[in-house]
Amino acid sequence: LIDRKPHPVWVGEGLLSRLDELLPPGLRDVPAALFHDARVPNELISTVGGRLKGRLALRLAIDAGEGAKTWQEAGRLLELLAAERLSREAVVFSLGGGSVGDLVGFCAAVYHRGVALVHLPTTLLGQVDASIGGKTGVNLLGAKNVVGAFHQPRMVIADLSALRSLSERDLWSGLGEVVKMALIRPERLWSRVSGQLSALVAAIMSDSSARGWQPLVADCIEAKLEIVGSDERDAGARAALNLGHTLGHALEAGAGGLLPHGLAVVSGLRAVLHLSARRGWLEPSDLTRALDLLAAFPAPNVVIDREAALAALLQDKKRTARGLRFVLLRGLGRPELADDVPMEWVVQELDRALAES
Amino acid sequence: LIDRKPHPVWVGEGLLSRLDELLPPGLRDVPAALFHDARVPNELISTVGGRLKGRLALRLAIDAGEGAKTWQEAGRLLELLAAERLSREAVVFSLGGGSVGDLVGFCAAVYHRGVALVHLPTTLLGQVDASIGGKTGVNLLGAKNVVGAFHQPRMVIADLSALRSLSERDLWSGLGEVVKMALIRPERLWSRVSGQLSALVAAIMSDSSARGWQPLVADCIEAKLEIVGSDERDAGARAALNLGHTLGHALEAGAGGLLPHGLAVVSGLRAVLHLSARRGWLEPSDLTRALDLLAAFPAPNVVIDREAALAALLQDKKRTARGLRFVLLRGLGRPELADDVPMEWVVQELDRALAES
Repeated sequence: LIDRKPHPVWVGEGLLSRLDELLPPGLRDVPAALFHDARVPNELISTVGGRLKGRLALRLAIDAGEGAKTWQEAGRLLELLAAERLSREAVVFSLGGGSVGDLVGFCAAVYHRGVALVHLPTTLLGQVDASIGGKTGVNLLGAKNVVGAFHQPRMVIADLSALRSLSERDLWSGLGEVVKMALIRPERLWSRVSGQLSALVAAIMSDSSARGWQPLVADCIEAKLEIVGSDERDAGARAALNLGHTLGHALEAGAGGLLPHGLAVVSGLRAVLHLSARRGWLEPSDLTRALDLLAAFPAPNVVIDREAALAALLQDKKRTARGLRFVLLRGLGRPELADDVPMEWVVQELDRALAES
Repeated sequence: LIDRKPHPVWVGEGLLSRLDELLPPGLRDVPAALFHDARVPNELISTVGGRLKGRLALRLAIDAGEGAKTWQEAGRLLELLAAERLSREAVVFSLGGGSVGDLVGFCAAVYHRGVALVHLPTTLLGQVDASIGGKTGVNLLGAKNVVGAFHQPRMVIADLSALRSLSERDLWSGLGEVVKMALIRPERLWSRVSGQLSALVAAIMSDSSARGWQPLVADCIEAKLEIVGSDERDAGARAALNLGHTLGHALEAGAGGLLPHGLAVVSGLRAVLHLSARRGWLEPSDLTRALDLLAAFPAPNVVIDREAALAALLQDKKRTARGLRFVLLRGLGRPELADDVPMEWVVQELDRALAES
């Protein structure tokens, strides 16, 4: 158990089968609703359902992915909660990846002006990143998370056993956010990721054991809790977590939903490293070390529309009078906001990313 | 200016024509959106529009009333904000009564996970009650405010001049919440309401002056700020504000939207007084004094469906194992939650209210 602000997190194998014991006392016998990603293995769903027996007012499969995070879908889930007359004392569980957590978390944030929420992330991305820190949201008119709320989960339970059901590509996508964190907090994570990633993926793909993942996932979660705990409402320090996301989001937009988020972030990180070096903020030796770390990742291997990616890059809120707004690195472990990155440099990085995809 | 937690409130005549000077410095030149009740006089709308000139990205008339507070309507307003690409730094204004403030406040609470909100209440009910304290919400499946958020406005500007456009019935409705507050905080408000109400209404109806209302409205707002400031998330003390609302909501449900909220509350307050006296919590002399205060109010004068009202009264969340949950008075100024009020007593009070309506 990682017991710190803004919320406690359990990390380990086989946790979902002990779900009821792990919950905070106040959530052990109140009425519950469970929303799960429709693709989560039945075995996990029935494990969770079994531990909530006798108080499960509602269980529903929902679609995953950014495309399902709509205002209408949130309204549908809220109507179901209201139809069951769930009270303010109820608890809402999300079982699945990041997009399911965003959508279900938003519903929990606004139902009765906020009810208890517990995330049960089943993807690596969800465990190390999306479920941590209380951001929830849905999309509107193609704008990602333009509507949402800050609503801290009462608890997150990251069961490493769930990682066994992921594809190799999903694992690498999750590792994209892990490596991002290693660049932000190298003192805590560098030694855990440097030269280790391929072996970790191979282990889980061959003998289905996630045991070796425990220290990496736990350290990554601790690092994120540290950052979000100091800036729950995203007013400052939390911006560092956007490292690699500016170009990453643009590539996702250009790939029309086919590029896994974490792999897009990896391409974005490469761009950030080059931009930081070019501006003289990052030593050549550090650039090399960091690029070596990223070399383990598979190529995205999708078609990306250059115009769509470019449009996303140039949208209003990233533009300033002096250039584009980017989180860069003033040395490893020292993310810093720059709002004067020349447009031309960024377009060159986009083209490099497209050539590598 | 009443400058206290959880938010500052301006009260006075002609304030809207000085809107820009009254705003907190951070909100004086950021982009703005204005949503106003479609029934607000054009004069007020253009006054406000004029003070926001040059930065008004969006101005929209919306329908008032509980029926317009829907999830779909909130989605429509949010899409308009997103289409204008309003940033996190923008400010949203609501101009109108309580229902407009609830809906617009909810949109401000979730747009970009919360943007600045300023209420410009134009009804008495909005000025003394609905705009104060940060509750926002929309209705779902007929359940009032079952979805919403706590989102404190950055400022409330209660322009007494707006009261001149109200009907006599609207004024009495607002006074219903004022009298409720007088029963909760008699030391502050009793002398301001006892024997004064008819004269205040007559003054504004005859010579269109709202000057005499200043002390009453200001004291009522201060009393509400005191209570909500001690309990922003509605965990305890704030429950006292529901005085008269249990039966009041039931009557509103039975009247199908034709009974003004404050007049329903007045009927609810009569019931609370009788129930409190019957249980021995309220002295007969205090019962008489309080009923005298309520005698000034006009009869609701609408048809109320007994079955619908009864159904609303008996819904789950008001029921306990020992009876019904009500805020009663253990003496004037001492609201207290009772959860064992006999069903039979309550039905008798409902019938009394129906006979008087």
